[in-house]
Amino acid sequence: MAGPDPLKLGLIAGGGPLPLLLAERCAAAGRPLFVVRLKGFAGAGFEAFDNAEAGVAELGRAIDLLRRAGCGAVCFAGIVARPDFAALKPDLRGLKALPGAVAAARHGDDALLRYLLAEFEREGFAVEGAHDVDAGLTLPEGPLGALAPGPEHAADVAAALAVARAIGALDIGQAAVVADGLVLAVEAQEGTAAMLGRCAELPAAVRGSADARRGVIAKAPKPIQERRMDLPVIGPETVERAAAAGLAGIAGEARGVLVVDRARTIEAADRLGLFVVGVAEPGAAR
Amino acid sequence: MAGPDPLKLGLIAGGGPLPLLLAERCAAAGRPLFVVRLKGFAGAGFEAFDNAEAGVAELGRAIDLLRRAGCGAVCFAGIVARPDFAALKPDLRGLKALPGAVAAARHGDDALLRYLLAEFEREGFAVEGAHDVDAGLTLPEGPLGALAPGPEHAADVAAALAVARAIGALDIGQAAVVADGLVLAVEAQEGTAAMLGRCAELPAAVRGSADARRGVIAKAPKPIQERRMDLPVIGPETVERAAAAGLAGIAGEARGVLVVDRARTIEAADRLGLFVVGVAEPGAAR
Repeated sequence: MAGPDPLKLGLIAGGGPLPLLLAERCAAAGRPLFVVRLKGFAGAGFEAFDNAEAGVAELGRAIDLLRRAGCGAVCFAGIVARPDFAALKPDLRGLKALPGAVAAARHGDDALLRYLLAEFEREGFAVEGAHDVDAGLTLPEGPLGALAPGPEHAADVAAALAVARAIGALDIGQAAVVADGLVLAVEAQEGTAAMLGRCAELPAAVRGSADARRGVIAKAPKPIQERRMDLPVIGPETVERAAAAGLAGIAGEARGVLVVDRARTIEAADRLGLFVVGVAEPGAAR
Repeated sequence: MAGPDPLKLGLIAGGGPLPLLLAERCAAAGRPLFVVRLKGFAGAGFEAFDNAEAGVAELGRAIDLLRRAGCGAVCFAGIVARPDFAALKPDLRGLKALPGAVAAARHGDDALLRYLLAEFEREGFAVEGAHDVDAGLTLPEGPLGALAPGPEHAADVAAALAVARAIGALDIGQAAVVADGLVLAVEAQEGTAAMLGRCAELPAAVRGSADARRGVIAKAPKPIQERRMDLPVIGPETVERAAAAGLAGIAGEARGVLVVDRARTIEAADRLGLFVVGVAEPGAAR
């Protein structure tokens, strides 16, 4: 077995469209790749890549697969729900990591993710974030599509980003909706789609409509967040749901939010009349 | 017209069960009462009391009704959704208050409530909170029903109260659900019932069940809150919905949460196996 290739990426794939997108970008860039599909989470479509399946607690199997494939780097991508620890079927290496994982989980999702990442670093892998693998995946500063937020949206953009960061600091979630200064919804475990869905059901008086859009959804990484995992994501579905909730636009922290399927995201925003804007983190270098 | 009676209470009644409950408690205590039913919000059942209807923006009419009835004090009780200011039909006095109300609303719900309360004080009324009208309405310290939280619930009780206060400080809402250290949901404009409803739909791995209850919903007033308006409320419905979400219990800030229908709240909690506990505000005198 040859030594690991620092360039060869082991992609640990959870749910949602991001992992396949990343795999395709790696292939397009000529970067060698091996995909570990997480059982019960990873979607279909990885047939074009070297790949294998592993359970979320089969840490030994995942590490072994990545070593045999010669991967020097790993990247976690996609959605993995917090496991029911009692129902896990860990392998030996997973069993060794389990007490630490359970203890970390007590301190929140972010602590759990940081613990898992550190386990892979302890095994000698370089851990990359999705935005390290492809910098073009993150939201740039400024408007993404044809529309830009107007002065009438500035206060809601700022407030929604501030609330998203504040709840992130409390390890609650990464997204919030504000319309005319009123916090309509805050994301916790239900996720962004469900949060936007309930905004659409709020009384018409507090929200906007397709004819008179108002309000902003903002997404930002948790200030304490390990940015190599679990960056917030926006995509065409976010735009569609924000539009259905009567919102005027989407704001994300520039370079802190992943854009899944940029072309379709822009197409949906322009078609539905929403802005999508990246806003620099306060104090960040431009 | 005789001068106002400082004891006679003008009850300004929004939605939900609290206003009727307060009216009944006043009547039982022999306190004279006049009820202003807010159009579109107040429920039925006020026939036994002197009462009249007024629109939410008919401030002049409400003040006139209360003066003619000889009320020296007013109490706001019940749910009033934030109005669509563009659709309001204010009377002259309401029109005078409108610019201030709109400006206050930009700073959040609490600022709007404080502004309205100040308008009644400017008109010479003493403003009482529901807990001033009947101190027996608030959650006392300690367990309310037969069950008390065990040591295994202490961390979730503390965390849920801390999150509820933290989001209150941001003027987001007054309630949060935490299970095993994970923030399952946070209340904003959708209200407590909807928040508990979505907890019941979360993956089984992160929440409890009727067989193995875990997690706590906590309610606390916003730290910045004008306590004479909009104190958080729990009641039998809160218990039923918390039970359906698999939670182990309900925690509220002692003397900072109203209990609607204490007898049925206790009955539901005991029947469903949930604790309801009042926890003293940090630093509060016992």
